[in-house]
Amino acid sequence: MRTHINNLLESRTACEQEDIADPLYHWQDEFQLPQDLIYLDGNSLGPLPKRALKYLEQAIQKEWAEDLITSWNRAGWWNLPETLGEFIAPLIGAASGQVIVSDSTSLNIYKAVHAALRLRPERTVIVSEADSFPTDLYIMEGVASTRQNMQRRLLGTDGNSLAELLDDQVAVVSLSHVNYRTGELLPIAELVKQTHAAGALFVLDTCHSAGILPVELDRWGVDFAVGCTYKYLNGGPGSPAFIYVAKQHQQEAVNPLSGWWGHARPFAFEENYQAAEGILRFRTGTQPILAFRGLQAGLEIAQEADIHQVRIKSQRLTQLFIELVKMRCGNFGITLQSPTDPEKRGSQVALHCLNGFAVIQALSARKIIADFRAPGTMRFGFAPLYLRYTDVWDAAEALFEVLETEEWRKECFQQKAAVT
Amino acid sequence: MRTHINNLLESRTACEQEDIADPLYHWQDEFQLPQDLIYLDGNSLGPLPKRALKYLEQAIQKEWAEDLITSWNRAGWWNLPETLGEFIAPLIGAASGQVIVSDSTSLNIYKAVHAALRLRPERTVIVSEADSFPTDLYIMEGVASTRQNMQRRLLGTDGNSLAELLDDQVAVVSLSHVNYRTGELLPIAELVKQTHAAGALFVLDTCHSAGILPVELDRWGVDFAVGCTYKYLNGGPGSPAFIYVAKQHQQEAVNPLSGWWGHARPFAFEENYQAAEGILRFRTGTQPILAFRGLQAGLEIAQEADIHQVRIKSQRLTQLFIELVKMRCGNFGITLQSPTDPEKRGSQVALHCLNGFAVIQALSARKIIADFRAPGTMRFGFAPLYLRYTDVWDAAEALFEVLETEEWRKECFQQKAAVT
Repeated sequence: MRTHINNLLESRTACEQEDIADPLYHWQDEFQLPQDLIYLDGNSLGPLPKRALKYLEQAIQKEWAEDLITSWNRAGWWNLPETLGEFIAPLIGAASGQVIVSDSTSLNIYKAVHAALRLRPERTVIVSEADSFPTDLYIMEGVASTRQNMQRRLLGTDGNSLAELLDDQVAVVSLSHVNYRTGELLPIAELVKQTHAAGALFVLDTCHSAGILPVELDRWGVDFAVGCTYKYLNGGPGSPAFIYVAKQHQQEAVNPLSGWWGHARPFAFEENYQAAEGILRFRTGTQPILAFRGLQAGLEIAQEADIHQVRIKSQRLTQLFIELVKMRCGNFGITLQSPTDPEKRGSQVALHCLNGFAVIQALSARKIIADFRAPGTMRFGFAPLYLRYTDVWDAAEALFEVLETEEWRKECFQQKAAVT
Repeated sequence: MRTHINNLLESRTACEQEDIADPLYHWQDEFQLPQDLIYLDGNSLGPLPKRALKYLEQAIQKEWAEDLITSWNRAGWWNLPETLGEFIAPLIGAASGQVIVSDSTSLNIYKAVHAALRLRPERTVIVSEADSFPTDLYIMEGVASTRQNMQRRLLGTDGNSLAELLDDQVAVVSLSHVNYRTGELLPIAELVKQTHAAGALFVLDTCHSAGILPVELDRWGVDFAVGCTYKYLNGGPGSPAFIYVAKQHQQEAVNPLSGWWGHARPFAFEENYQAAEGILRFRTGTQPILAFRGLQAGLEIAQEADIHQVRIKSQRLTQLFIELVKMRCGNFGITLQSPTDPEKRGSQVALHCLNGFAVIQALSARKIIADFRAPGTMRFGFAPLYLRYTDVWDAAEALFEVLETEEWRKECFQQKAAVT
């Protein structure tokens, strides 16, 4: 890869040629992106797939307006959680019947951690990571509060390796595949092995990996997993999340959010809850159908694109960006927070910069969209289906100009945003 | 009312004149309903408000496609739970700051019952109703399973009045305002009084009352309430539900689904959960924005229409239907399951009929849409904003013809549907 990247570092023309040769180049036509915008925030919210327009119009004008209540059967609304779950399964290395789309990531973590704890009733420790996306930690607190004497151990706070934290009191290890801040990619297969050797269960958060790099839940032996669909899966703002429950746990696993959609016979309107067979018991209540329809297009595209090509291009894009920044912006106090080894990195690059917030604002004014995470992290996400090598070149060039001219000092870029 | 209805029973022409005089007549223009369809299933899924098209297009083409991630601030996505909650508040008699839209009804019941139980930690009984919509019961089971020694007492099974079931062990009473099957309307103010006198808290399910009849949560002293937006509020298939938490409980109430949207400082990305002030702590994780935008139009319409006029017309429509059915279909073994007194009835009419399923199918073939709930209930919902008195006349006439000609015996109407 190094030689390859070195060539691209030479000139924008080299990047142009790389775009022409790129086997994923044509995928950008599937997305409706504003003209002249370089969108490096697909790790936060993916853009609109053009075919989503068609599905949404169909859902609104035909299914809702015209067919009304009959669409629950006729249009398959009722089965969307498992229908769309089957779209996701191959993207995360799951055999059929183990994934549904339902609710939000937070709620799916609640279900997964709760179910895992009940499978290890005699144990009292949850292991997670200090640098988890906070909702994972908050939800674990919520689950723990419903049980007696639960304790939390955090990687990064209570120990520096998973091995140090594991013992026969650990019920569940819950970690993120890719760190939301630094982009660090964890060696899940190895961590699952250690976890199982200690007799605990493994819950994986794939929010920053599903759809952007190969995930092999079945092969790695992951017990439960959750993930987000509005980032690299381009499902639309706040589109519903998914949950994976490994086949061997489905019979025993208890969903605490035992709503009627998870009942064995929802339309018998029985007085007592009886969980449906298999993954369907992780359904809860009525789901937001328009959001499901918005999601379908993104999932189709993710299935049709070759994930291995996506991974190769993703590594090249991030590496190119890192090298360009090193070359051009090395003198401005910017440091790399992401792993230097592309094999240990997801599809984003985190740069630390004291004035990062203002820099991101200045880039935004130049129509280059990335985001900022306090206290000083600039996050650049690289989605290979709609990004070009020339986009990376132009983004690095713009970053250099913003830093060199101190454009970021402008008053308008210094204001603090409530949501970033 | 009786004289008034008697006049309408005379002829379809009398109903036509009533339509012309109806102060709510013009509201039907706000809805996009298929031509010649009589839709008596708005208690299950409301039709598409025309202005929802505008909001959805704006959300898809402008907010998502063009403004992308900036819409979290610029378009107010992040605040939609409380923004839309404020639309709902006046419809349910709630002062500002007590309602958010978030998640599904099932999940909001989970939050409400869980929070209420934690406010009465020394008590061990939940009282509900055998004839609750099942998800309420299932979710209560789920909540109870996370606590020690919880017991359930059911109105209709363990006693015939709330008074019989109340004692100093009851922590929570959770009931539906309008019975989803029969349309019976409970005297909530009185039941809350009894509940409070026993030292328990009251959780109200307003799925079948919000937007269709006056609800006075603050005045009645309800502690927690939940409700659905895709029925009489016309929010779209599976549109997100709402939760109400009375001001006086907000400081103490604990949301077990403690996701990052309910944190006091969600963007500080802190390691530990600290609940936001007030109703905002009942937020959970990222919400499906397209479904929220679909909902906004229905809420606006509900706010703009006069709920007292809606209630009057609703009572007239249901009464007219009951009288017409009694007059024309009395000889076909059909019995009324709804209360005869319009003051004790929501906006639906339930008729028991041994061949109800096939009858509903036959009506559907005549473009009259109602629904069926096993074992023998035909449910007819009456939404005054888009239904005419002549629609009621025509529906009753069609029911008569289906019964008289035994049209329902046709093979095609006998097949069993998976979802009804």
